[in-house]
Order: sequence, then structure tokens, then C-alpha cells
Amino acid sequence: MLTENPRVVFAKRPGNSIPIPGEHVIFESSHSTIDLDGVPLNGGYLTKTLMLSPEPFMRERMRELSVPSYSTHAVLGAPLVGFGLVVVLRSEKEGIKPGDRLYGLTPWEAYTVQPYIEGRANYNPAEAPDYTFDVDALSLQIVPDPKGAFPWTRYFSVLGAPGLTAFCGFEGCADAKPGETIWVSSGASAVGMVVVQLAKAKGLKVIASAGADSKVEYMRSLGADVSFNYKTTPIAEVLKEHGPLDIYWDNVGGKSLEVAIEYSRLHARLIMCGAISEYALPYEQRHGIKNTNMIFKKRLRIEGFLVPDLAPRLAPRFYAEMPLLLAQGKITAKEYISEGLSSGPEALAAVLREGGNEAVGKPIIRVALD
Amino acid sequence: MLTENPRVVFAKRPGNSIPIPGEHVIFESSHSTIDLDGVPLNGGYLTKTLMLSPEPFMRERMRELSVPSYSTHAVLGAPLVGFGLVVVLRSEKEGIKPGDRLYGLTPWEAYTVQPYIEGRANYNPAEAPDYTFDVDALSLQIVPDPKGAFPWTRYFSVLGAPGLTAFCGFEGCADAKPGETIWVSSGASAVGMVVVQLAKAKGLKVIASAGADSKVEYMRSLGADVSFNYKTTPIAEVLKEHGPLDIYWDNVGGKSLEVAIEYSRLHARLIMCGAISEYALPYEQRHGIKNTNMIFKKRLRIEGFLVPDLAPRLAPRFYAEMPLLLAQGKITAKEYISEGLSSGPEALAAVLREGGNEAVGKPIIRVALD
Repeated sequence: MLTENPRVVFAKRPGNSIPIPGEHVIFESSHSTIDLDGVPLNGGYLTKTLMLSPEPFMRERMRELSVPSYSTHAVLGAPLVGFGLVVVLRSEKEGIKPGDRLYGLTPWEAYTVQPYIEGRANYNPAEAPDYTFDVDALSLQIVPDPKGAFPWTRYFSVLGAPGLTAFCGFEGCADAKPGETIWVSSGASAVGMVVVQLAKAKGLKVIASAGADSKVEYMRSLGADVSFNYKTTPIAEVLKEHGPLDIYWDNVGGKSLEVAIEYSRLHARLIMCGAISEYALPYEQRHGIKNTNMIFKKRLRIEGFLVPDLAPRLAPRFYAEMPLLLAQGKITAKEYISEGLSSGPEALAAVLREGGNEAVGKPIIRVALD
Repeated sequence: MLTENPRVVFAKRPGNSIPIPGEHVIFESSHSTIDLDGVPLNGGYLTKTLMLSPEPFMRERMRELSVPSYSTHAVLGAPLVGFGLVVVLRSEKEGIKPGDRLYGLTPWEAYTVQPYIEGRANYNPAEAPDYTFDVDALSLQIVPDPKGAFPWTRYFSVLGAPGLTAFCGFEGCADAKPGETIWVSSGASAVGMVVVQLAKAKGLKVIASAGADSKVEYMRSLGADVSFNYKTTPIAEVLKEHGPLDIYWDNVGGKSLEVAIEYSRLHARLIMCGAISEYALPYEQRHGIKNTNMIFKKRLRIEGFLVPDLAPRLAPRFYAEMPLLLAQGKITAKEYISEGLSSGPEALAAVLREGGNEAVGKPIIRVALD
């Protein structure tokens, strides 16, 4: 019996704009069909997509082919590829059986024969810049049934890529000491909400910013000592009153980084987890940082990191500590669910709009109930 | 008997310009006299200045009082204070006897009762920014007679503050590995010439730049693999051909830092030892760095350092290793002597002009023969 296999396809590079639903990223309800019982597995396994996660790195993969970056390019005409939670329907692969749930990179479609072929980037290390990471290497991994200790959705936030990102960056780059002050930009983002909590747990004073009042409220509920909306309160004003900073968690780059440098203390650490303000802008339109002399004068350390660099050292600790903290209620998270694969294109655009929207929580697209 | 005590006085803050001899910095041949046999020592010691050293940090100390920086301010109306080599004439201080030679901070005058009072900055840690270092803490230290193994002038270059700066920054921040590529800006400066040699000794490929052809020649003689004049050859062109960089030694800041980021490799380290292009410029006129997103994408580490931060850990190694390397001829240096205290103001201005001048070597002012 043939089943429809709807998908979200990468149709056109968005250039400098946010990918527009229906133009750059298109939901196709009846692109193809699949025979769930008979499709050849070729030693792999068939999965049903339960949930998907729109994330900023997916935008970066849509850039022009000529632009180098930390990630491989997304494949035009193929389904988007992003983090997902899938359940196994059939398997020919040792160690994977029907009913297993896995989290990791998967195409934005209802059913997939894994490892997926469509959407996989053509990665040739000899031709790519040395800083380009093969995103498709983030393959699916079995995740245990939390059996009520926490919802499955946590595998996308605090236990997923965002949580691991927060953990690796904070534990690997911050050198945080109790009593120090940190500013977390995008403090209500999937990564930011974990950084805020890790910093509080370490005894830091936490300043957190976001672009919506509902998020300001949420960051406060997570324990942020100072929580503000950067759209209505000047950042410099807040840092002048509540700084100086020992640590800055940067998801933004550009102007925010400049302000952070201005209000940094001697030997502050500035961690670049992203530079979303700059990705889509041409050089001329970007904000130029003019206080680099302060990097020297204050002896600052500005460091960019990517999870794959630090995971070999820190992931084992993450997987040992985080589920426990979560089950004990010592760390929390929130997810914001949109229903159906058809909501995918708009969910992705929402993540990329400056300040996102009023909705609080890590956005997740629920594709199927079970 | 009274002896003339000529001096070089800090007469006026230079604002955005280079300190002009005769206006901001003035040589006074007969400001005061001193009784060398009778002047009270108050438990200290009397020194005769043999040599002095004009250095960029002295310019930074002349900034407006409202401008924060890594150093305390120079004192208006007092002699300049900088690194000098002095000989002891009389002493009431234990451990210091006539004939001893000392290197360290001293006023720009012929004779001084030490510790000096005039020119000492009023430093109050409670009022100064936490990144402001009390320059006067760099007090005079006895230096041994090299007895022909190397000239006394080396105490100003490879064995002095510039050499220690190069050693601390290179050993403390570079994480250099054989086969890597480093670009040293101001590679013929007192600091740069040591970095070039340390890098070569470590097996690195060294790209070095300076602003005069004579200096390009000198850097080549020190072993630089690629040596160029940034005034006649575009930096980007050189780095495109001979890069990418694993390490950048930055004495300049601004535009140079931006180019270095552009031509950096994955996980490159950018060491800020200064940012001379920015100090004297108002914010509006500075070059804004627009490629900070590459700090994240390439996972770079940009780090500022000041010697006092690293010296507790690295100075012992420096003092153990450097004199030996020098005596063995494994590291070398060059000094450029100007004669007489009266040449001081112009010698200082020359250090601060972009590209300095054609003269090769660490500039030294010879105040007295012995």
C-alpha cells in the first residue's frame, strides 16, 4: 500500500532575506508516495518522523554556494535537513529495531529510509575550507524513553543540540567563577535558556536579553537576575548599571559584541556561539566594531566555538549530567509546538526573524503523534 | 658641587596627534641642578642615567585624563618616565651599591634619587578601572654585567621589556606548533623582531611586515620566510598567497585585524599585543571590523595580553633561557642609538610615526657614556 510522503523542500536560495514560506521553502503535501511495508532498506532502516526542529544553522546552509561557512550547503530541490525525533518502523540494521526512537539529523519529510540520501550534502574535505563541518555527520542516535521523568520534547531543547551547545560553550570556554557576571544575549532561545540556568547554577549573576516581553518574563522565571527587552531598553544602559561583564554569551555579533566589549571587565571572556546579525547582510551594511583596542587594553578573550570541536571532550559529561539534572527538576526547559509538517516553513522563518516572536520556548514542529 | 640635571618634560597632552618635540615633550638643558655628593637619599639611592628607551606605551600614558586604558597616566610637568639603564652613584639601600647597573622604569633626566618621586603616577586602585596597570610598579632591577657576551644595549631589546613582551605573548597565547604559519605585523619593531625569531626557532613559517624597505631586509635577515612592506604591497595579496594563518601577532588593530581574520585558518589564534592604529583616533575615524562572524565560523580565538598578567608564570623561563640563547648567538637583536638626552623628544616621535622611519633596530637614547 502506498502512503503519501509529504515534505518541506528547499526550493530557492533566499539571498539576504529570511527564507519566505512558499517561495524559498515549500511544503509539498503530495510530492511522492512510499510503500511502508515494501520499500527496500538496503541494510538501513525506515523511520517515521515524529517531531522536527527549526534552527538558525539551517538558514546558514541556504547561503549562496560562493559563501564559505562553518557548515556544508543545503541541497536545492531536496527536503530540508534538520534535527528530528523519529521512530523506527522497520530495520535491517544491527542494533536498531522497530519502536526505537532516535534524535539527530533527518530530512523534513514524513517517512525516510535511513541513512537518508536526498538532502545529504556533497562534502569533499579536500575542496571545502578547513573550517567547514559536514553537518550530515550529526547522524541519528537512539534516545531512551524518559518514561514520564520528562517529556520527549526535551530531546530538542535541553537534552538536544541546543543544550549540548550551551553546555560545551559554557563549560569549555567561559571559565566561569561564582560571583562573576554574565550577559546572555538571546537568553530565551533554545541555547540561551540553558546557558542562563547553567550560569545560575554556577553562582553567577545573570543578565539576559531578548526581543519580546513574554521572553523577558520567561528568563526571569529561569532565575536571571536582570532580564530585559533589548528592543525597548538600550543595552548599554543595562550593562552600565548591572555590569561590568566577566562573560558575554554572544549569539548575535556586530553591534552587540561591540557593546559587550565596552562594558567588559579586565580578562573577560566573550564566547561567540553565533553571529546572526551578520550572516545575511552584505559587508557594507554590517556594523563595524571600532573598539578592538579594548580587546588589548582589557586583555579580553573572544572565542568562537562549534559543538563538534568540544563534544569529544565534553559530550560524555553532558550525557551523564544533564538528564539527571532534568529529572531532578534542577534544570528546566520549555518548548513551543506548532502542529503539522505544513507549519514547518513558517516555523523556520519565525526563528530567524529578529527577536523571533512572542511565543516562548524552543520551537518544535509536531509531524505525527506516534 | 652642583651639577646641571637636564631632563625631558611632559609639557602638554598631545590629543590626537603624535607628541611634537618642543610643544608636548620638551628637552630642558638647565631646569635644575643637583648636588651629587650631598643630595639626601632618604634610604634610597642615587642613579646616573646611561640610556633610555622611547616606547609606544609612553604615548598611551599621555592620553586625556577621561580616557581609560591599561596604563596609568603620565604626570604633566614632570619628566617622562620610561625604561632606562642607570648606574648607581651612591646608595643607602641594602642590596644596592655604587657601580650597580639597573634596568627598569626611571625618569627621563640625567640624575635621579630612587625611587623617583617626580613623574610617579597617582594610582588609586579603588578609583582606576580594574584593567589599569600601575606602570610605576615596573621598578628598577639589577642587571648583571654581560662581560662582552653581548652589548649592554640588549637589555633594552631582546632582554628587556620588548623581549619579555614577545616571550610572554608567544609562549603564553600562541599555542604554536611546528609547521604552522604566523603573520607578525610590525615585525621589525623591538617586540616584533623577537617574535619573528621565536617563531622561526619553533619551526613556524613566518610572514613579517613593516613600513620601510630597510626593515623588510632586516626581517628577512632574521629568518622571516616572507617579508614585505605593507605600504607598497597589499596585505591581503600576501596573505592570500602565503597564508592562511594559524597565528597573527597584532601590534596594530583595526584594519589589519580584519584582514587577519579574513585569512585565518580554522582555530587560528590572534594575539593582540597592541592596537596602535586606534589609540589616537576618535571613534568615528576608526576602521570598523565587519567580519566578526568569521570569529565564530572559523572558531578563532582573539586574545589581548599585557606582560604583568603572564610574567609571574613566564618571566622565570624568560630570564633563564633568553640570555643563554643570546650568548650562544641563537637569537639576535639590533639597536639604533641616538645621542644625548636632547634627542629624546624626536626619538619618541619617530617610534610613534606610522612605519617609524628607515632606521633599523630598537631605538635607544644614549644619555651618558658611563
